[in-house]
Amino acid sequence: MAVLTMSLCEMNEGQEADFYALLSEKQELTTRDGKPYYRVTFRDARREVGFPIWSDSALADPCRSEWTPGHFYKLRAVLRQSNYGPQLEIKKIRPVEDGDRQEGFDPLMCQPASRFDPVEMFAELINIVESRIENGPLRELVADILEQNREQLLVWPAAKKNHHAFVSGYLEHVLNVTRTSCHLAEKYGELYNDLDPPINKDVIVAGAVLHDIGKLRELATTPAGAEYTAAGCLIGHVLQGRDIVRETAVGRSIDPEILLRLEHVIVSHQRLPEWGAPKPPMTPEALIVHYADDLDAKMNMLVCVLKEDTTEGPVTSKRNAMAQQFYRGGL
Amino acid sequence: MAVLTMSLCEMNEGQEADFYALLSEKQELTTRDGKPYYRVTFRDARREVGFPIWSDSALADPCRSEWTPGHFYKLRAVLRQSNYGPQLEIKKIRPVEDGDRQEGFDPLMCQPASRFDPVEMFAELINIVESRIENGPLRELVADILEQNREQLLVWPAAKKNHHAFVSGYLEHVLNVTRTSCHLAEKYGELYNDLDPPINKDVIVAGAVLHDIGKLRELATTPAGAEYTAAGCLIGHVLQGRDIVRETAVGRSIDPEILLRLEHVIVSHQRLPEWGAPKPPMTPEALIVHYADDLDAKMNMLVCVLKEDTTEGPVTSKRNAMAQQFYRGGL
Amino acid sequence: MAVLTMSLCEMNEGQEADFYALLSEKQELTTRDGKPYYRVTFRDARREVGFPIWSDSALADPCRSEWTPGHFYKLRAVLRQSNYGPQLEIKKIRPVEDGDRQEGFDPLMCQPASRFDPVEMFAELINIVESRIENGPLRELVADILEQNREQLLVWPAAKKNHHAFVSGYLEHVLNVTRTSCHLAEKYGELYNDLDPPINKDVIVAGAVLHDIGKLRELATTPAGAEYTAAGCLIGHVLQGRDIVRETAVGRSIDPEILLRLEHVIVSHQRLPEWGAPKPPMTPEALIVHYADDLDAKMNMLVCVLKEDTTEGPVTSKRNAMAQQFYRGGL
Amino acid sequence: MAVLTMSLCEMNEGQEADFYALLSEKQELTTRDGKPYYRVTFRDARREVGFPIWSDSALADPCRSEWTPGHFYKLRAVLRQSNYGPQLEIKKIRPVEDGDRQEGFDPLMCQPASRFDPVEMFAELINIVESRIENGPLRELVADILEQNREQLLVWPAAKKNHHAFVSGYLEHVLNVTRTSCHLAEKYGELYNDLDPPINKDVIVAGAVLHDIGKLRELATTPAGAEYTAAGCLIGHVLQGRDIVRETAVGRSIDPEILLRLEHVIVSHQRLPEWGAPKPPMTPEALIVHYADDLDAKMNMLVCVLKEDTTEGPVTSKRNAMAQQFYRGGL
Amino acid sequence: MAVLTMSLCEMNEGQEADFYALLSEKQELTTRDGKPYYRVTFRDARREVGFPIWSDSALADPCRSEWTPGHFYKLRAVLRQSNYGPQLEIKKIRPVEDGDRQEGFDPLMCQPASRFDPVEMFAELINIVESRIENGPLRELVADILEQNREQLLVWPAAKKNHHAFVSGYLEHVLNVTRTSCHLAEKYGELYNDLDPPINKDVIVAGAVLHDIGKLRELATTPAGAEYTAAGCLIGHVLQGRDIVRETAVGRSIDPEILLRLEHVIVSHQRLPEWGAPKPPMTPEALIVHYADDLDAKMNMLVCVLKEDTTEGPVTSKRNAMAQQFYRGGL
Amino acid sequence: MAVLTMSLCEMNEGQEADFYALLSEKQELTTRDGKPYYRVTFRDARREVGFPIWSDSALADPCRSEWTPGHFYKLRAVLRQSNYGPQLEIKKIRPVEDGDRQEGFDPLMCQPASRFDPVEMFAELINIVESRIENGPLRELVADILEQNREQLLVWPAAKKNHHAFVSGYLEHVLNVTRTSCHLAEKYGELYNDLDPPINKDVIVAGAVLHDIGKLRELATTPAGAEYTAAGCLIGHVLQGRDIVRETAVGRSIDPEILLRLEHVIVSHQRLPEWGAPKPPMTPEALIVHYADDLDAKMNMLVCVLKEDTTEGPVTSKRNAMAQQFYRGGL
Repeated sequence: MAVLTMSLCEMNEGQEADFYALLSEKQELTTRDGKPYYRVTFRDARREVGFPIWSDSALADPCRSEWTPGHFYKLRAVLRQSNYGPQLEIKKIRPVEDGDRQEGFDPLMCQPASRFDPVEMFAELINIVESRIENGPLRELVADILEQNREQLLVWPAAKKNHHAFVSGYLEHVLNVTRTSCHLAEKYGELYNDLDPPINKDVIVAGAVLHDIGKLRELATTPAGAEYTAAGCLIGHVLQGRDIVRETAVGRSIDPEILLRLEHVIVSHQRLPEWGAPKPPMTPEALIVHYADDLDAKMNMLVCVLKEDTTEGPVTSKRNAMAQQFYRGGL
Repeated sequence: MAVLTMSLCEMNEGQEADFYALLSEKQELTTRDGKPYYRVTFRDARREVGFPIWSDSALADPCRSEWTPGHFYKLRAVLRQSNYGPQLEIKKIRPVEDGDRQEGFDPLMCQPASRFDPVEMFAELINIVESRIENGPLRELVADILEQNREQLLVWPAAKKNHHAFVSGYLEHVLNVTRTSCHLAEKYGELYNDLDPPINKDVIVAGAVLHDIGKLRELATTPAGAEYTAAGCLIGHVLQGRDIVRETAVGRSIDPEILLRLEHVIVSHQRLPEWGAPKPPMTPEALIVHYADDLDAKMNMLVCVLKEDTTEGPVTSKRNAMAQQFYRGGL
Repeated sequence: MAVLTMSLCEMNEGQEADFYALLSEKQELTTRDGKPYYRVTFRDARREVGFPIWSDSALADPCRSEWTPGHFYKLRAVLRQSNYGPQLEIKKIRPVEDGDRQEGFDPLMCQPASRFDPVEMFAELINIVESRIENGPLRELVADILEQNREQLLVWPAAKKNHHAFVSGYLEHVLNVTRTSCHLAEKYGELYNDLDPPINKDVIVAGAVLHDIGKLRELATTPAGAEYTAAGCLIGHVLQGRDIVRETAVGRSIDPEILLRLEHVIVSHQRLPEWGAPKPPMTPEALIVHYADDLDAKMNMLVCVLKEDTTEGPVTSKRNAMAQQFYRGGL
Repeated sequence: MAVLTMSLCEMNEGQEADFYALLSEKQELTTRDGKPYYRVTFRDARREVGFPIWSDSALADPCRSEWTPGHFYKLRAVLRQSNYGPQLEIKKIRPVEDGDRQEGFDPLMCQPASRFDPVEMFAELINIVESRIENGPLRELVADILEQNREQLLVWPAAKKNHHAFVSGYLEHVLNVTRTSCHLAEKYGELYNDLDPPINKDVIVAGAVLHDIGKLRELATTPAGAEYTAAGCLIGHVLQGRDIVRETAVGRSIDPEILLRLEHVIVSHQRLPEWGAPKPPMTPEALIVHYADDLDAKMNMLVCVLKEDTTEGPVTSKRNAMAQQFYRGGL
Repeated sequence: MAVLTMSLCEMNEGQEADFYALLSEKQELTTRDGKPYYRVTFRDARREVGFPIWSDSALADPCRSEWTPGHFYKLRAVLRQSNYGPQLEIKKIRPVEDGDRQEGFDPLMCQPASRFDPVEMFAELINIVESRIENGPLRELVADILEQNREQLLVWPAAKKNHHAFVSGYLEHVLNVTRTSCHLAEKYGELYNDLDPPINKDVIVAGAVLHDIGKLRELATTPAGAEYTAAGCLIGHVLQGRDIVRETAVGRSIDPEILLRLEHVIVSHQRLPEWGAPKPPMTPEALIVHYADDLDAKMNMLVCVLKEDTTEGPVTSKRNAMAQQFYRGGL
Repeated sequence: MAVLTMSLCEMNEGQEADFYALLSEKQELTTRDGKPYYRVTFRDARREVGFPIWSDSALADPCRSEWTPGHFYKLRAVLRQSNYGPQLEIKKIRPVEDGDRQEGFDPLMCQPASRFDPVEMFAELINIVESRIENGPLRELVADILEQNREQLLVWPAAKKNHHAFVSGYLEHVLNVTRTSCHLAEKYGELYNDLDPPINKDVIVAGAVLHDIGKLRELATTPAGAEYTAAGCLIGHVLQGRDIVRETAVGRSIDPEILLRLEHVIVSHQRLPEWGAPKPPMTPEALIVHYADDLDAKMNMLVCVLKEDTTEGPVTSKRNAMAQQFYRGGL
């Protein structure tokens, strides 16, 4: 019987298949009576399987000397349920080769990713910029920043961990924030239409689209996920995002007050100094983007906790990014 | 020449007119050389004028013995500009009489009020409840609470001070929060449609409408504005709002988990313990209502500061309810 | 030689006996070389013994398929000292049967419990209420709440963990707090006898007795100890305790100010918002109950740490509920 | 008609009398039109009267050149009610002379003082020490410290302001703390009689009596009230109190662990570092004295606020030593 | 007798002189009986005199209509001591004219200024840069930034208030910080000479010189002192200083890691987020500059408080920039 | 071939040698299949080696019954590299005997120690005291305290952990602090030479030398490192250091204000209450010593983290004494 080719995440218990996977971790351990062994983890976008390679196994030698974390492999294996969770009984394994791309291999298929199509999300973001920002120079600035970084933006995560920490998570988060900000800009612009100067909707939209743009410099992507860059650690995405705006604005005739308001949205979007904001929101525009951003991040964390927490009872444990319990339903 | 009847807030400098006003303050003071005098303040919905009544004035005696703070008066007076701001040169003054109501007097005309029509706001709120809450018993509960308190809700302020502290401010704030919450409920309900149990939009709408309902017991209204009740001071509107829901729910067949989720929205809507929340938001519903509420309150404070701060320079002073500076524009 | 029947906590090393015990924990583990085994824990009121059941043991099969955590068992076993602490060498084991109750089995004998007789504590509490609360309607309210919940109160713990987290711990804690509060009420009532209105001793006694009554709804008891209910997590015992008072007060002619002061004692008894108090103590009554409560809880924690901490040196470790070191004596 | 001799605090409106008073304050002020005048304040133990001495008064010259704040005067004056509160119409005034002591003058009669007799309070404190501290050397140490400082202790305040800031306030506060501590020592000593080492009641009593003894060095008394000494500012009474104990203990055969526990009670009695405690309570003895002390101080503040706050409504303002509102009664 | 020309700060009581002064403040006030008057303040570098201009004075009219705060005047006046402090009895007054510069007028003579010569301080700073920074491109970058901003730097204050808030205060502060940093760089570079990479002394010197360079954009100078710019309020000197470095570095071949370390010194020099640092010091260089900076600022505040506090007793009041008391000496 | 005698820290992989070592730890563990074994750690000044002694080893018996943690041993062993790090293959082992001292054994050779010679550091400290403190009685006080505690000071660590936690770490830290303080005293003494009273350089030097002197009582040294004493836990080195000064000052004619300033330097040197300072620095002297101390401690922590952190990437983990990341270099 021919062996099926499928994704690791689609395999059923007991099934044998050919699939591509990322070796995301390899640890050298030892049993208490002194025998060394390895614990390896293979993953694709939606399933992660970790298990031991004992020292008397035929795989022990290649595991020790050849398998490299962060590299991709083609495996033929059976998915076995054991007392310690699912394991892979490996029949064949070899590194991914150039020809595999033609067979359908894509590194992104081995990382968790947004449920939404990044190309569509990018297009929607561009569309919002084009249709909602009335001020020409500002609109062009924002659109150019997006287009110049299109390749990165399509795959970038929103963070290393905590929220939207997956492929295209950046776009998913920014699009959510931008949609909410557009709604609030309309609403509060109308509600307080006697304010002088009026609430600047262009700045709100531009600020929502660009508030996290510094992540492009704060993070670097690797097959195993995002890592902080040196400059990301020492300077941080809040300042780095403002740098991108200022560098791109050089030589353009952008109204200085509009540029200042946009920079301020970025600088203050995390609101509290202990959350990394050098200044609190001091304009209506900054206040709105902060709330839209904060809600989207917190909601994503809450949803992740509700999906992933494995404790029992009406509430989750408080060991999560928000350090609090959440209600999972039931009385 | 006939004297015009107009509002105090419509009078121009040097103009004489008949108008109704609230004596909002009366202080007994003394000059440094020992002469007693009074400082009185009259106000209507949009202007407040404070000035001295000297002891050698013909008004000195009635001011001391008859004028009562919190009472309404009909005045004929000239609005004079002086070195110490606008003053009233009073020609005639008498307490408001029963017949004045027929002439157009209404106590509410002497207090700051929402720019929006409370009857329309109430109707919109009821309409949202009727059209957006699918669960029958919950919908009836919310509608009944609104209808049973209609008279109070039409005039209630949202607070004694800080935000929406004016006639019908409660409705204005709650309607804003409810509209935003409806938008966010739709959006996040769709975004995380794989959550189990799903985000409960009914609870979000009900929670938005009722999150501040305890203000009806925390505050008492007086002609001069809102005051805290004893129970408001010792218990607080967060708990008192939940009381109203629980008391009204007695004898109704409301799903216990839905009721619990609604109570939790009220209990947690101020999020931090130091802001008065016994519990932080532990459900998606509570998280959304908190953000919609917090943004609306903060935006109103920001707008009030921008309108009222009298310092000069690009930013306001930090002596305001949010204890921070805001940018008023200009480089 | 006949096998003795005794409590697990009375057995000596090497002794064989028949006894009842709760299976409080059962974990499926595996040795590093891949062999599965179970680690089980049996306990009675004062001793807890945890040990492995190896996969080659005769007990391995019943352990895996039959033994259920939270259930009670009758065992015949020898208590052996090993390098890993005491272990049980099980000779016979079967689930507790109905007839065992006649032989003396009682589920409470397998949980840690107060050293004091709950029936006597309850009687003393009732006696204090009857003799110390002069105001008739208030006295009846408090007494009725106690009597209506007598069954639960006799066994309830004061908390899931931290302090008085054992059978009848609620009564032990509340009785301590009430005794201290009575003493302080007398003392400060006399000391500040010129206060107007005077310190209300009735409210102090009632507040001390009822300050934690919401624990009846916040917690649910199980054979293995207390768990939080959904409403306990989302609302909390502070609010739930006030609910019990308000629900029981419906239809009684209690002086509204006295009821308000009593509610305030409950609402504020944890003093700080970050400890869960929506309001700080704003009355002499609330201040006294807070201090009596806080001291009793802290003293119990301190005593538990001194008894249970296993580090060496003049002070304990700071890994305890109060996150600080305590002095155990010695220079 | 002969002029009566009475206390300032006993005079009725319109009454003329001879009395002794402290000139507690003298401020040089000026009216807005440039005329200088003085505002002076005279006080005795329970009444304080402040009023202006105008520059055209016959008293203007002696006021400027002779009257000295902190000095005592014999006055003949009428107590007049004015629009600015009570005032003194001075007929005669001269500094207190040596012979006045024979006539009944005592500086203490011009400062607010405890309602309790300091000699009796001191005797009760000595009696508690003698009867409650079983350990001989410790008992003698405590008694000696009291006796050696008897003169100061009889009049010392507990603080410059905030709580028990009046003549003999130290004794009143310490006696309250000691009584409560004795009660709690008995109660918890019995409750946790299985603790090893047992709760040391001797240390509790000694610690309660001496916890604030450093106030003798932190403060200096003046006719106008207490002032901080330089060492009080730079070192503080917590450390200075421990100094007194250590200096007095030199050459005595006190058990070192008992002395250490006593020092620790003093060092930790304010519990939190931001309240001035270098260490938190780490022993049962320190925990009990802290709670007894804190409750007594807070209760005194609360009572003072309730008596002195002049705002209206169900609660006081929050401008007081505890920065919070208190309930004064009424719904 | 000829009238002397001297500085305001050199005049003795009763002396008449010609001098230049800044009208630093003009307030319109009114006496309690309704008469308007002005309170004006004239100052030079080291003395400030404030006094009333009464409405019946010959100066009343020019004061109201001509005198402008922030403008400079030439006065002939007598310095009189009054009950309300020193006052000026003005004989002649006119605005400063162009010709006055030839007579010796300089706007800087009317503002408080550093006691040190700014030209010398600037030269010393340049000298340190030239002699201490070994890395060529870095040395040139720092020197160029100084030279390009020489005019401003010579007069700039270090802050609007709090510390070194006077003419050339920036140079005085930065020179102090740089000297201390040089000392510490030598010392710790030698002490930890085994660190890899070694402590970078060049970065320490450059960071010390440039840590506050953003003040050039955060503040704007006016005759009456410094004011915050809009960008200063919304972005802040920490980010603006890094901008200056990055903008000047464009097109230069500076080692990227050295530039990053220098940027990090600026970004982290206030250490805590609540003090405005987006990142804490994460390098030895940043740690040293932070400490040198913080000590110099705090020491200047302490010295200012000790010189200016006017309370009595061994310690100052706590109403100062550091919100604490300081010891002024004496027991 | 003769076996070499060398230090453990000098041995190469595979080398056999005779050496002295401290048994710093011995833990009784068990493999998952129930076999007991020991994990032992031997160390000298710069290398620590931990490894198992299996139950079937010839060393198992002596390990269990004879080897004592905190004792010194002479070993003959081979240093083997294994999968779990370096291990010792022990050929011979016996406790250190009296005669070994003659062979070169010294307990200090088995603990981590300062890289600097303690005798030289002590001499330099004495020299600074003698040459820098002008006030005779103060100089003698400081010198006497040093000389009286010379034996201890030569070996004392600065702390149990965190910073300078090694033999002679106390001297290394105090010497650094004193050198920096001398520099700052000169500089700020000159800069603010108009301060009255002037900055007291003697107090700065004395305070720097003695700020941590209480460590002599807070800590006790053991072969395995420092431990807290009971008094250290309950009172703390800040108070204990002041005790040493006060006790030594008895009977000397030291100017009281100088003594007070010196005590204040000690009391306030940790600045914040939560860091253990009963008072903040209130004098220039205390401010300088605090900064010199804090920088030296933090710099040592930073250096230790950079040397010891084993994570990868541009920054360290935040699991260290300062709870933050540090930059280790590289982009």
